[in-house]
Amino acid sequence: MPVPPPLLYPPFNIVRLSHVEYQVTDLANSRSFYVDTLGLQISDETDSVLYLRAMEERGHHCIVLHQANEAKVSVLGFKVFDDSDLDKAERYFKEQGLPVEWIDKPYMGRTLKTRDPDGIPLEFYALMDRLPSLHQQYKLYNGVKPLRIDHANMFSANVDASVSFYNNLGFRTTEYTEDNDTQKVWAAWMHRKGGVHDIAFTNGRGPRLHHTAFWVPTPLNIIDLLDLMSTTGWVDSIERGPGRHGISNAFFLYVLDPDGHRIEIYCSDYQTVDPDHEPIKWDLTDPQRQTLWGAAAPRSWFENGSFFDSAIVEEPVLKAQPIIAP
Amino acid sequence: MPVPPPLLYPPFNIVRLSHVEYQVTDLANSRSFYVDTLGLQISDETDSVLYLRAMEERGHHCIVLHQANEAKVSVLGFKVFDDSDLDKAERYFKEQGLPVEWIDKPYMGRTLKTRDPDGIPLEFYALMDRLPSLHQQYKLYNGVKPLRIDHANMFSANVDASVSFYNNLGFRTTEYTEDNDTQKVWAAWMHRKGGVHDIAFTNGRGPRLHHTAFWVPTPLNIIDLLDLMSTTGWVDSIERGPGRHGISNAFFLYVLDPDGHRIEIYCSDYQTVDPDHEPIKWDLTDPQRQTLWGAAAPRSWFENGSFFDSAIVEEPVLKAQPIIAP
Amino acid sequence: MPVPPPLLYPPFNIVRLSHVEYQVTDLANSRSFYVDTLGLQISDETDSVLYLRAMEERGHHCIVLHQANEAKVSVLGFKVFDDSDLDKAERYFKEQGLPVEWIDKPYMGRTLKTRDPDGIPLEFYALMDRLPSLHQQYKLYNGVKPLRIDHANMFSANVDASVSFYNNLGFRTTEYTEDNDTQKVWAAWMHRKGGVHDIAFTNGRGPRLHHTAFWVPTPLNIIDLLDLMSTTGWVDSIERGPGRHGISNAFFLYVLDPDGHRIEIYCSDYQTVDPDHEPIKWDLTDPQRQTLWGAAAPRSWFENGSFFDSAIVEEPVLKAQPIIAP
Amino acid sequence: MPVPPPLLYPPFNIVRLSHVEYQVTDLANSRSFYVDTLGLQISDETDSVLYLRAMEERGHHCIVLHQANEAKVSVLGFKVFDDSDLDKAERYFKEQGLPVEWIDKPYMGRTLKTRDPDGIPLEFYALMDRLPSLHQQYKLYNGVKPLRIDHANMFSANVDASVSFYNNLGFRTTEYTEDNDTQKVWAAWMHRKGGVHDIAFTNGRGPRLHHTAFWVPTPLNIIDLLDLMSTTGWVDSIERGPGRHGISNAFFLYVLDPDGHRIEIYCSDYQTVDPDHEPIKWDLTDPQRQTLWGAAAPRSWFENGSFFDSAIVEEPVLKAQPIIAP
Repeated sequence: MPVPPPLLYPPFNIVRLSHVEYQVTDLANSRSFYVDTLGLQISDETDSVLYLRAMEERGHHCIVLHQANEAKVSVLGFKVFDDSDLDKAERYFKEQGLPVEWIDKPYMGRTLKTRDPDGIPLEFYALMDRLPSLHQQYKLYNGVKPLRIDHANMFSANVDASVSFYNNLGFRTTEYTEDNDTQKVWAAWMHRKGGVHDIAFTNGRGPRLHHTAFWVPTPLNIIDLLDLMSTTGWVDSIERGPGRHGISNAFFLYVLDPDGHRIEIYCSDYQTVDPDHEPIKWDLTDPQRQTLWGAAAPRSWFENGSFFDSAIVEEPVLKAQPIIAP
Repeated sequence: MPVPPPLLYPPFNIVRLSHVEYQVTDLANSRSFYVDTLGLQISDETDSVLYLRAMEERGHHCIVLHQANEAKVSVLGFKVFDDSDLDKAERYFKEQGLPVEWIDKPYMGRTLKTRDPDGIPLEFYALMDRLPSLHQQYKLYNGVKPLRIDHANMFSANVDASVSFYNNLGFRTTEYTEDNDTQKVWAAWMHRKGGVHDIAFTNGRGPRLHHTAFWVPTPLNIIDLLDLMSTTGWVDSIERGPGRHGISNAFFLYVLDPDGHRIEIYCSDYQTVDPDHEPIKWDLTDPQRQTLWGAAAPRSWFENGSFFDSAIVEEPVLKAQPIIAP
Repeated sequence: MPVPPPLLYPPFNIVRLSHVEYQVTDLANSRSFYVDTLGLQISDETDSVLYLRAMEERGHHCIVLHQANEAKVSVLGFKVFDDSDLDKAERYFKEQGLPVEWIDKPYMGRTLKTRDPDGIPLEFYALMDRLPSLHQQYKLYNGVKPLRIDHANMFSANVDASVSFYNNLGFRTTEYTEDNDTQKVWAAWMHRKGGVHDIAFTNGRGPRLHHTAFWVPTPLNIIDLLDLMSTTGWVDSIERGPGRHGISNAFFLYVLDPDGHRIEIYCSDYQTVDPDHEPIKWDLTDPQRQTLWGAAAPRSWFENGSFFDSAIVEEPVLKAQPIIAP
Repeated sequence: MPVPPPLLYPPFNIVRLSHVEYQVTDLANSRSFYVDTLGLQISDETDSVLYLRAMEERGHHCIVLHQANEAKVSVLGFKVFDDSDLDKAERYFKEQGLPVEWIDKPYMGRTLKTRDPDGIPLEFYALMDRLPSLHQQYKLYNGVKPLRIDHANMFSANVDASVSFYNNLGFRTTEYTEDNDTQKVWAAWMHRKGGVHDIAFTNGRGPRLHHTAFWVPTPLNIIDLLDLMSTTGWVDSIERGPGRHGISNAFFLYVLDPDGHRIEIYCSDYQTVDPDHEPIKWDLTDPQRQTLWGAAAPRSWFENGSFFDSAIVEEPVLKAQPIIAP
């Protein structure tokens, strides 16, 4: 059963995934990971919170880290096209019976907070403080040379329902995996900004955040990060990769922050701006969808994820497990 | 004087630059250049016409080559979001007093032909035949491994006027060069698809096409092309590069097809989907805007361009010449 | 217990590992692997034998494939500095009680055949037919763009004995792994040509050939090979990698030819020409010696190897197994 | 007229070019160039002298910078195989009527100082202090990530004489350019360590040092250096490149230190350990010998060089100038 056709005229206009806020249990250690190792740049910093951006971003932040007692994901943030889209969004979510709230966030203009039907906390804004461009200050490039936030990937207990909800927000599916037995969608990749995805959902205990991804220039930057992490005490934080995903065709690496929040480093996906860009369907039994080159992912990669603040996790609808070799 | 603010709600919705059609004087020789050397894939081929696409494109073609007596550019083609956008476009161009015509084009649905105020031939369509994806058929990758058409760059006799016209079509300026003396825009880069540009204009005898550009994965692909061209009889077709543009931050190479049509190979520009993405202003006296690393472009690069079919070329408004070293 | 000090003035002067001859059971299929996939160039070809060289080699061949009923390794070939070294070699091996024989080999001058004390068949020559250079014929570069043969790696039932024998031939140890319990050498890497190794030995049922390695320009060539093999029917022939060895610091990939002969693709080791270049000692319990980035090798990589023609395989002296995760 | 055949059994055994000592007029500024920009590591530092090494070197230094009133080259240093080679060298140079002197150098064992017939100051040693390996301390990699010193290139007033002298020391010619009119050698590249060269000579006012070269892993490191220099105030110190030499096939960049001493960054040459490795002859009229891709070198690159301490510069024997475009 194919994914639903894209909704070309959605109720409001989301531009892209903008930022992810995390709760972390040792901010200094997380700073060492995100700043000294990955190479994100600090936009603002206090004793309890760290605002970070990647090298080509001019918005104030793409990652926010809060010192907390428990590791969690506070919110996924999305940029909308225009201030009027926020009002349209408020109306839309109200009609869907979802909670809406206008909140004050540092460095951001009018901000609408809601949750998706699974309880994933979402916030929408049109304007965030803009900072001077850094992308030609090559002296600052460091670590993996992260250029921009790319996407967030979630476990969902009901991927068909998740795809339907986000499809109705205008996210267009680029690739998906179908479970042949049930003809249900096992996993889906959905975009707004013209790449393979801003968000993705995979069947599993959910909602949980599987990972947040950063886009880097070339596979050699990923190799540099592996060499750096391997020789600066972070070798056990390398979880999977490097490899090429069949799905998305991206060259990838998965690493874990000190609280186990998973970060993907990612490059070389493809452009999907055409509204008639056809989704690619993969079979759940095809191991090359996960790693084109055939190597298996470790069990932890299939099982572990970060909890969203105050979201109740449920068992997945689909019980078939993905193939885990070796 | 800054470029005009972006028109966020344009009269119709252009998705991206889609294709460029050329007239060439020796199709077999051009085939050797575009197919055997650059590595574009053949979608269709007759004795007199060649349809080509790049590796990640699913639309039928991004380059069309017609055997002709004279080397020219036939048309720039743009994809619009939806069939209704074509009707909106027809109304809009009529209101502007520009010529409109519905034409039949192979492999394309309803197609609207017009010219911009300088006489550049333009065509708009919503639907083009879609072909199976090639991007994971790695055996086919060849030459420079071109992934997709990126942009077309034109000489304009009046860049301010060109920027104004295309701004009113919804193209948003990402970078521009200003002539300090006259406070006029010397050159501008404008996009629809979320990169640095789909189209660009530079002061000069115009309208003429300066180049069409293809996006490739990494600088190493460009080095591979240089090695290949240098040892297969194409060394004199290497015009400029490799280098990094200050403007766009792209790693570039310029090569010339057998008729002198200029092709840019291009990678590593940045994402510009934010509607409040601020344009970067460069000073005409700053040589790093052209080559961040300081090397000069050859005179031919400043002077030569391809003529558009039936467009009358005029002398430029601005007489100051860009700095040409050495 | 460290490896023995290098013998700076050996009995004769070996320049480098030159070639490996294999017996293969389906020459057409092996041709598809070595020529069409890896990108080696054919120097000569008959119905029953294929002579191959890599892109920067001017000697006639580095790999010889013979059609045979059984998959085996026929011989390891070494180039000596001068014709007089062959006579010195003959005397030396006779003194050691090893078999010596002058043989006729196509494309090679005077050739001395012997076996090492474990029965590994070796041949030595000073002159091989030289072919025109190919390294700037970039049109011919294909597959992984192999530049030159780099080394052969063997299982040895007694690594201390192997190291001692080859040390006495002038091979200098660059890195080695020691078994703490027994203070015996578990594995050693030894060179003549000024890189990390021409030959290496690892504890295991031996003598068997673990792999032959080719040197390539950059990690991106290895990624290209992975993409190619994954999409042309060779995905199951990818055994391990890509990764970085702690030992040798090389970026590696291991693939299997149709008979299971293992080939390593390898780049970025370091220069070792200094006669006082100190060997690096690794602890057998350090998993980063095998993969700096921490990922485990599959069991097959530890267990499988190719038999040498007429060499009797014995159980290893050391029983402790290397750490195999996961 | 070909270069002389290699002298396979030279009077003493030189291993490789080891180090170059410079006089610089502003040590702090030179430190900023060599350490902060190129990424060389400091082995020792005083107010008046700086000892540097590259990432994979274990010898104490490959570059020594002395604070001085005048910019000059103090000496080229070579490592010999064994202490006995120093005594053989002393005898040999005495027989040649060249000055010999045993000198004390910090961090070096017995050191023999002499001059070649053109007055180039040379020193030879067998043992230099060895330092712990850095090549897997990836946190320290910086700038262009220089791995090792590769070669020194000199202007010679009589290249035939220079080639003859160094050929008699055992340097083997890998590539050379011949002047068709006079059948004299215009330029020659000569090695001991198994790469394309340790030293090279080009016709010109000499003796002068044209450049010292460092080997880096991939062309992308050179691109990184260009980006870094272009945005940290060093853009005017970029003299030529990036490009590929026809001769040596190396990917190159030439930059100038604050005193105008020229440094080449260099990768991807080839292995030349075979004693019967045939030199490649280039014609002086072939512009691809200098840049395979056809771009011309600037005039400064042909004309400027660093003076050797106390060496008298003479006009070149050959008057024909190399082709300088544009």
